[in-house]
Amino acid sequence: MTKANMFYAQSGGVTSVINASACGVIETARQNKDKIGKVYAGLNGIVGALNENLIDTSKESAATIAALRSTPAGAFGSCRYKLKSYQENQREYERLMDVFKAHNIRYFLYNGGGDSQDTANKVSQLSLKMGFPITCIGVPKTVDNDLPVTDNCPGFGSVAKYVAVSIREAGLDVASMCESSTKIFVMEVMGRHAGWIAGAAGLANEQEGDAPHIILFPEIAFNREKFIRKVKSSVRKFGYCAIVVSEGAQNADGSFLADAGGTDAFGHVQLGGVAPYIAEMIKQETGYKYHWAVADYLQRAARHIASATDVEQAYAVGKAAVEFALAGKNAVMPTIVRGKGKKYSWRIGEARLADVANVEKKMPRKFITRDGFQITDEARKYFAPLIAGEDYPPYRNGIPQYARLKKVLAPKKLKKWKA
Amino acid sequence: MTKANMFYAQSGGVTSVINASACGVIETARQNKDKIGKVYAGLNGIVGALNENLIDTSKESAATIAALRSTPAGAFGSCRYKLKSYQENQREYERLMDVFKAHNIRYFLYNGGGDSQDTANKVSQLSLKMGFPITCIGVPKTVDNDLPVTDNCPGFGSVAKYVAVSIREAGLDVASMCESSTKIFVMEVMGRHAGWIAGAAGLANEQEGDAPHIILFPEIAFNREKFIRKVKSSVRKFGYCAIVVSEGAQNADGSFLADAGGTDAFGHVQLGGVAPYIAEMIKQETGYKYHWAVADYLQRAARHIASATDVEQAYAVGKAAVEFALAGKNAVMPTIVRGKGKKYSWRIGEARLADVANVEKKMPRKFITRDGFQITDEARKYFAPLIAGEDYPPYRNGIPQYARLKKVLAPKKLKKWKA
Repeated sequence: MTKANMFYAQSGGVTSVINASACGVIETARQNKDKIGKVYAGLNGIVGALNENLIDTSKESAATIAALRSTPAGAFGSCRYKLKSYQENQREYERLMDVFKAHNIRYFLYNGGGDSQDTANKVSQLSLKMGFPITCIGVPKTVDNDLPVTDNCPGFGSVAKYVAVSIREAGLDVASMCESSTKIFVMEVMGRHAGWIAGAAGLANEQEGDAPHIILFPEIAFNREKFIRKVKSSVRKFGYCAIVVSEGAQNADGSFLADAGGTDAFGHVQLGGVAPYIAEMIKQETGYKYHWAVADYLQRAARHIASATDVEQAYAVGKAAVEFALAGKNAVMPTIVRGKGKKYSWRIGEARLADVANVEKKMPRKFITRDGFQITDEARKYFAPLIAGEDYPPYRNGIPQYARLKKVLAPKKLKKWKA
Repeated sequence: MTKANMFYAQSGGVTSVINASACGVIETARQNKDKIGKVYAGLNGIVGALNENLIDTSKESAATIAALRSTPAGAFGSCRYKLKSYQENQREYERLMDVFKAHNIRYFLYNGGGDSQDTANKVSQLSLKMGFPITCIGVPKTVDNDLPVTDNCPGFGSVAKYVAVSIREAGLDVASMCESSTKIFVMEVMGRHAGWIAGAAGLANEQEGDAPHIILFPEIAFNREKFIRKVKSSVRKFGYCAIVVSEGAQNADGSFLADAGGTDAFGHVQLGGVAPYIAEMIKQETGYKYHWAVADYLQRAARHIASATDVEQAYAVGKAAVEFALAGKNAVMPTIVRGKGKKYSWRIGEARLADVANVEKKMPRKFITRDGFQITDEARKYFAPLIAGEDYPPYRNGIPQYARLKKVLAPKKLKKWKA
């Protein structure tokens, strides 16, 4: 009998270290050639399996696979595509099984967030039912840091580092200019549902007066009056005010600030851009000159300033996923377990996919100061080790050199799939 | 007679390497203690001289001064304040001379762009006329790269590196997602009058298909139809389209795209934000899903990804300015002179302030491809060495540690100044 093959796919919004997990998966599989045949990667995620677009990773050199460790975004392509339930779309699951059977795929590693872990769990159950058991292992990934059980999610530490570094630097810029010019700087960061990323920016506030002076969290209902008072007091005390606002910042009624009624050049309600909204509000109330930035994809793609801890952990969960599969485990996901000691340490743990799927971990209220504008010491203790260490990519001619894959597809064996 | 003192001031918009120039000035002055007394730095630029707010840099340790080399923004404070002409505001010049006399300041080093070099030149002339000759040396600085005579301006190389790295990374992100989600990414960069910064982002386009696929320059009148055609062809060929747009991008009539009629939540014409404007235009014309980013101050403060070439040159012009002063030169500015050889080399040259003041160097048309959307090979040859090399700042707990100055002011000797 030929050795069983492995299928690996990237899912959902990408991160600057998801390829480090891919690297961990592929390198570990290559070290176990006696047990694992080929590693196929889905071209554009799970959609690649449905369309039988299987990238044959054995065609990539060891150097290219190693370079994945320092390459941001999803090198094999990701997708925003969630399998429906078996009841709703049985054909999709049958197709998956057909593709897996045709290519002798017995391992399915799914690198994504909560939705993806749910899918992996379903595939595991259904494969049994359908008489072609697939070992399904989740590989955690999300900049949103909202997966349960695990202490933190690979992908989060690097975006956290990016926002902390960026607000420190931009804060110094405004501090230089505030005497005669810009007094307000507003930086918008990701986090539609939770303030993990915005909160991490608070690490830049190491001493009294450091930026950011104000953080606007989705968890805290926006109070215009209180906010403007805080802005004014910051300008009075430090000469300027640097603000980090989560894209998910909300009014008391749960509506997003960003949807607060601005219209664009075409007369449509303007989505995104809570930073300019906040900046203009301050201008109206105080007259202060402002600047604002929206980092958007720059923050989650910023491999050039990745956290070394994050890169290590991303690699480790990929590696562990393969080891779990080889150890006969199924429907589980490696997690990061924080050590109890004073000095930060971590090890790989294990969670059942059923416990991870579709559960969103919120940032605890105790991470936010009583006034709602800053993070607490407890939050600092949690965040700090996640951004620790630098892991710089290689450069040529001043520009980071990221892996360029050949992406050779395995020959197709089935008819074309029609969704 | 006591040794003459030196006055150094930072002017205008700051950069991630202007403090490297300050470091060059102060360290070189300290090496010449037999000739130069104290180096005073203006608190918030030239305004610090008018208000007699003189930071006594001798109170800062050697380690702190050395740390300036890797600290972004203006550590002594900068300002947007241009001295009027002598005819218009004689009192200001007289006050400057009073302060310089009171503190035995015989050297004036002004670190800024074209306006500042104009001021330094005027002070030089007037000091002679007023019987208290001041040696005035300009120190070039601007992210805009628009000073004449010099091959390039310290400050530009680092922002150039930031935008090239950022669009490479964000481009990979979009490439991962484009099959089922975002197909358009628009990044707005600085450059109100010239496309130097936008052009440098083109360095990330190393191979066919690399981001950025389109650059919108202020130098090329925006043509909506041609632009949308190019966007569509990029999506057809590569699956996505990554765009870099200069904040100064213009319509044929010279109006800024960013002013094109959007109104904000308060009913005001929305300034800034050409990125969301362009993104929404594409959505209207093609239906493609978009993301956009406005880096704003993040780009010019990004010391964490500074160009090593830029840092060296910024330091070198600061050092050279002191050496020029000691050599008895006056009303000049050190420049960067590019070597003629195939391999990049540079040395310090010299320009008369009169030749630098108020002259704006435009980006040559031959740097832009015929279709107006990309840079030429000649531009690549010019830009590439300016972003070469990495010069990372020191980190602690995952965050860059930048110099924190004591900023001890010299005791005042004059009455309070009223503007």
